[in-house]
Amino acid sequence: MPSSSVDPADPVFQLHRGGKMAIASTVPLTSREDLSLAYTPGVARVCEAIAADPGLAADYTWTAHTVAVVTDGSAVLGLGNIGPRAALPVMEGKAVLFKQFAGVDAVPVCLDTQDVDEIVATVRALAPSFGGINLEDISAPRCFEVERRLDEALDIPVFHDDQHGTAIVVLAALRNAATLLTRKLGDLRVAVSGAGAAGVAVTRMLIAGGVDPDQVVVCDSKGIIGRHRTDLSGTKAELAATTNADGRTGDITEALRDADVLIGVSGGQIPEAAVAGMAADGIVFALANPTPEVHPEVAARHVAVVATGRSDYPNQINNVLAFPGVFRGALDARATRITDGMKVAAADAIAGVVAETLTADAIVPSPLDPRVAPAVAEAVAEAARRDGVARA
Amino acid sequence: MPSSSVDPADPVFQLHRGGKMAIASTVPLTSREDLSLAYTPGVARVCEAIAADPGLAADYTWTAHTVAVVTDGSAVLGLGNIGPRAALPVMEGKAVLFKQFAGVDAVPVCLDTQDVDEIVATVRALAPSFGGINLEDISAPRCFEVERRLDEALDIPVFHDDQHGTAIVVLAALRNAATLLTRKLGDLRVAVSGAGAAGVAVTRMLIAGGVDPDQVVVCDSKGIIGRHRTDLSGTKAELAATTNADGRTGDITEALRDADVLIGVSGGQIPEAAVAGMAADGIVFALANPTPEVHPEVAARHVAVVATGRSDYPNQINNVLAFPGVFRGALDARATRITDGMKVAAADAIAGVVAETLTADAIVPSPLDPRVAPAVAEAVAEAARRDGVARA
Repeated sequence: MPSSSVDPADPVFQLHRGGKMAIASTVPLTSREDLSLAYTPGVARVCEAIAADPGLAADYTWTAHTVAVVTDGSAVLGLGNIGPRAALPVMEGKAVLFKQFAGVDAVPVCLDTQDVDEIVATVRALAPSFGGINLEDISAPRCFEVERRLDEALDIPVFHDDQHGTAIVVLAALRNAATLLTRKLGDLRVAVSGAGAAGVAVTRMLIAGGVDPDQVVVCDSKGIIGRHRTDLSGTKAELAATTNADGRTGDITEALRDADVLIGVSGGQIPEAAVAGMAADGIVFALANPTPEVHPEVAARHVAVVATGRSDYPNQINNVLAFPGVFRGALDARATRITDGMKVAAADAIAGVVAETLTADAIVPSPLDPRVAPAVAEAVAEAARRDGVARA
Repeated sequence: MPSSSVDPADPVFQLHRGGKMAIASTVPLTSREDLSLAYTPGVARVCEAIAADPGLAADYTWTAHTVAVVTDGSAVLGLGNIGPRAALPVMEGKAVLFKQFAGVDAVPVCLDTQDVDEIVATVRALAPSFGGINLEDISAPRCFEVERRLDEALDIPVFHDDQHGTAIVVLAALRNAATLLTRKLGDLRVAVSGAGAAGVAVTRMLIAGGVDPDQVVVCDSKGIIGRHRTDLSGTKAELAATTNADGRTGDITEALRDADVLIGVSGGQIPEAAVAGMAADGIVFALANPTPEVHPEVAARHVAVVATGRSDYPNQINNVLAFPGVFRGALDARATRITDGMKVAAADAIAGVVAETLTADAIVPSPLDPRVAPAVAEAVAEAARRDGVARA
């Protein structure tokens, strides 16, 4: 019986009964006068003003502070392709985090299709209702095309959190880890294990943030990506052309030999011997959840700084450090899109929150640190204006 | 300059600044423990349970109390085809009314397409995120096809409010007007002016509620609809086949000759002389907004009961009497659709609220009467169970 997995006494199920969110009215609605202002006949004047000047929708509707959290349920947490209905609790969770940390009103939109054309058409159709689109838990490589096409089609920010949220927090953490070890980002040899949505975005973000692409090696399930591989297309072919200048070949053990940094975003396991082969004063971010690529206590035997995705070890790399503030800043600036400059600014702001109190066990702020989202929002809005994509 | 229509000192624009609604979290999110229950890792157990048994989404997500308010902006209020962005203030207004009167969480979804196939595909795609679909301000005849196709495709309630909300309240009002005048619905001669979304739905609803189809005459802009008309197709051809048994021809004046009831849902003007030709103890519902088909004070010279859509005259026929309770009841019963029986039950419940206190100036409750939505919800849920469409 499938529902046997439900334990009604489990605090998780108790908390989730009826869902985790609701709509709230922000205007009074108790008198006829209230009704005539918020609804007919008064509302008609607002409609007419927006019809004459569509830009006014950002002033007189909730779109100014509202995003859609859109998924097709194809790559949910570590659970895989569980479909739209089963994905909804995660999207509600994102929505309440958006609200809690940045006052952004987020609406879960779980789509009953996994076809790229249909996803793009659906999101384009519903876009006028929202100020931004947060894509979530869409599997690679479809997520790259979905995001690219929506970014081109829409004049509001589109942001695939599994890619860029993770990448922003990794860059923030690596900035602080490098500072702690008095290293420069451009001098670090970096191995990325995993070439899915997160691996690709992390690699691009690190390069945008100052890591030397020649010194980056990315591995997928078949080993090191480079010009020697004849089986690659699309995003992976780009990685082969732009990274791994030394032409390394082999598996993750080869990738890690003398590397300064390991970023694990694969879910696969990495043997201790491979980590032992890294350079002195190494850095390991083993981000797979719930089981990191290498156990943090094992990694700590061989490197100077360790981070994971888990809340029960120090240095939790958690997207919630990024996405609420990124969208708050983008919405505040009425940005038409989210540029690399805005993402790097977000990473720098996250890193900056703990810059004065850096230790090897505190290279990133706590996910609950209330200073983070406002700092990220301000930095992102400034970067939007600098990059010429702001309308406010 | 288009924005010249905005007067920032106007209370309507002041109230609308930033929109009228927000998301609220219904769970605590202040500790790491809270995060681990509402988000990762705890949420994964809820996702897995729903993946194994999709019906559990109704227990453990907000879909149990959430509807989408979907429009394409093609027929907004009396403003016409103003598009999705300009329609949003109306949809936010509906959403806050849903919340205020029935605790239903409603999300505005304004679509950037007016193509029937695209509307249907978009709503099908986003349906897993919601417990019901309230269609709004979609022009006829497209609205009929959109509703029919979605009703067939989805296993959640689909309800075009401009049709059925209006029709339910008209039936409620006519029940009470007939009671007041000691007449039976089946004996009344009814003229309906207007054969758009509301006119068609009102006609069908009145017949479902007990009006004799032979005694109904419907007019469109070209005059009385009947078998003599060779220009009709679709919905209007159905009306020609099923109403107007006497084979009346001509304009609204002919339709009203000796009629007991006028239902105006056209927006056109009806001359006083035509109203003067109605039978004694007549009933006029002149529902066009803001300008009724015949002024209520003019109509009152000739008939016994007058209702309008306006808040500044007695007997306001307002959809808000119907839609919050209809969806609350449908959601409470986890209904797969909204049947005619549920609509009639809603009308009877609305009528019942003022049955003991009937006067010619109070045939329907005030739109702000807090007794209405709970009464409607209970009646609709019961009818859903009776009609075999309830899952709870």
